[in-house]
Amino acid sequence: MNCATMDTLPEASCQVVAWRHGLAATETVVEEVPVALVYNGISHAVLLATPMDLEDFALGFSLGEGILAGASDLYDMDVQQSAQGIALQMTIASGAMHALKLRRRSLAGRTGCGLCGTESLDQVARPIAPVQAGGSVSAPALHAAMSALKDRQVLHQATGAVHAAGWAGWDGRLQLAREDVGRHNALDKLIGALAYAGIDPRDGFAVVTSRASFEMVHKAAAAGIRLLAAISAPTAMAVRLAEQGGLTLAGFVRQDRQVVYAHAQRVRMD
Amino acid sequence: MNCATMDTLPEASCQVVAWRHGLAATETVVEEVPVALVYNGISHAVLLATPMDLEDFALGFSLGEGILAGASDLYDMDVQQSAQGIALQMTIASGAMHALKLRRRSLAGRTGCGLCGTESLDQVARPIAPVQAGGSVSAPALHAAMSALKDRQVLHQATGAVHAAGWAGWDGRLQLAREDVGRHNALDKLIGALAYAGIDPRDGFAVVTSRASFEMVHKAAAAGIRLLAAISAPTAMAVRLAEQGGLTLAGFVRQDRQVVYAHAQRVRMD
Repeated sequence: MNCATMDTLPEASCQVVAWRHGLAATETVVEEVPVALVYNGISHAVLLATPMDLEDFALGFSLGEGILAGASDLYDMDVQQSAQGIALQMTIASGAMHALKLRRRSLAGRTGCGLCGTESLDQVARPIAPVQAGGSVSAPALHAAMSALKDRQVLHQATGAVHAAGWAGWDGRLQLAREDVGRHNALDKLIGALAYAGIDPRDGFAVVTSRASFEMVHKAAAAGIRLLAAISAPTAMAVRLAEQGGLTLAGFVRQDRQVVYAHAQRVRMD
Repeated sequence: MNCATMDTLPEASCQVVAWRHGLAATETVVEEVPVALVYNGISHAVLLATPMDLEDFALGFSLGEGILAGASDLYDMDVQQSAQGIALQMTIASGAMHALKLRRRSLAGRTGCGLCGTESLDQVARPIAPVQAGGSVSAPALHAAMSALKDRQVLHQATGAVHAAGWAGWDGRLQLAREDVGRHNALDKLIGALAYAGIDPRDGFAVVTSRASFEMVHKAAAAGIRLLAAISAPTAMAVRLAEQGGLTLAGFVRQDRQVVYAHAQRVRMD
């Protein structure tokens, strides 16, 4: 396949020749590449991701999965490209590496797929600490953030294939936006970008252009995010986790309406 | 959380009380549960899935991942529910189990997440046999199948959170439809349902209400499906794999239009 890149295209996209209703046409498609997360030389996992903001992705994944307790545990990162994909070589604190090795040893002999690092049912419920009380947003500010996020979806506008996750202050002003083919990856990137920027996750909320599943709520709560607003529906398991974790979960945030499924006190109707 | 089920609700959904634009309202949400795939007593993987058509899911996952060469390698299945989730206990042929054990041993010490059973980049490219030549559908028949699939999305209509995968003959008539929170799971269920029904995957094509990523094309090709039509966009990596594997990949199949990204000869403009 001839996949042409050029300066006028968004990062991580390329053009292919396709047949649009029977006629040859140039179409812009998003890139998706295998990305390996490597800690102190040990390859831990491979995910398919959109190759942009990969430093954010590596840090956010590591925080959301509980591999790193904070950004200061990440000493160095090297992005290595090869024919097979991209390796994110991280140097992490010895305490974090020790904990990761113990965790891997207890899971020895597995292949594992699906839920990260989970092979049998009794390993599913990785506990999360409840998020702190407090913080709130007005419904109009919530919608302003979602609207601003849609305007920032450069890659999605070009390819129609990409999710976004954004960060706004409690005033609804969007501060960060990240895109990826995978909705979990977009949230990982956002969590990493927050940490790099030194933004306290108690000072605002996250908006996502996707559904809100269990893993999305888990990642958000693990990062200390107190409100997650999704453009589409949540699952029952996501609602349960949000209730238990003290996190406000809003869904169907579109056309000036929203449904709040847990801890609704953080969405003010003023 | 009080998650009420009742006979009038679709399977795998329940009702919760939420705040719709500030007012208390009853909302229907989809269930998502941890599902463990267990082969001859050995737990292989846990995925989050919508708890319906789980026998189809187990068989389709096993075929698409290359764990089983055919449905006849699956001798028996027992669905066990517990507080932690659902275990799909499969009894499989000793040859298939031997191959799975060898594969797991070569991956020892891993946790793995993301790409199924993949920990480092050199394990990514699990080869697929090219699909057979032949077979074609007219553009109107392609759209008829997609339209019929949308009408069959009972769970999605109730919850707004669910993907579907459908199977149609080359005449465009929809024969099977399966739903799941996860788009990969919906395709797994469809592949399993095809095998249980004894339908030859050369006799039609698959339609999905999602994007077409690398893993979707990989699963389809592994099952011998020759045409995959998605309502949304493909990724560049999915287009490459479809080209290599001889599979026809159509995207943006909506409003009587479509874009064919690989092996366009199977979509006739007559």
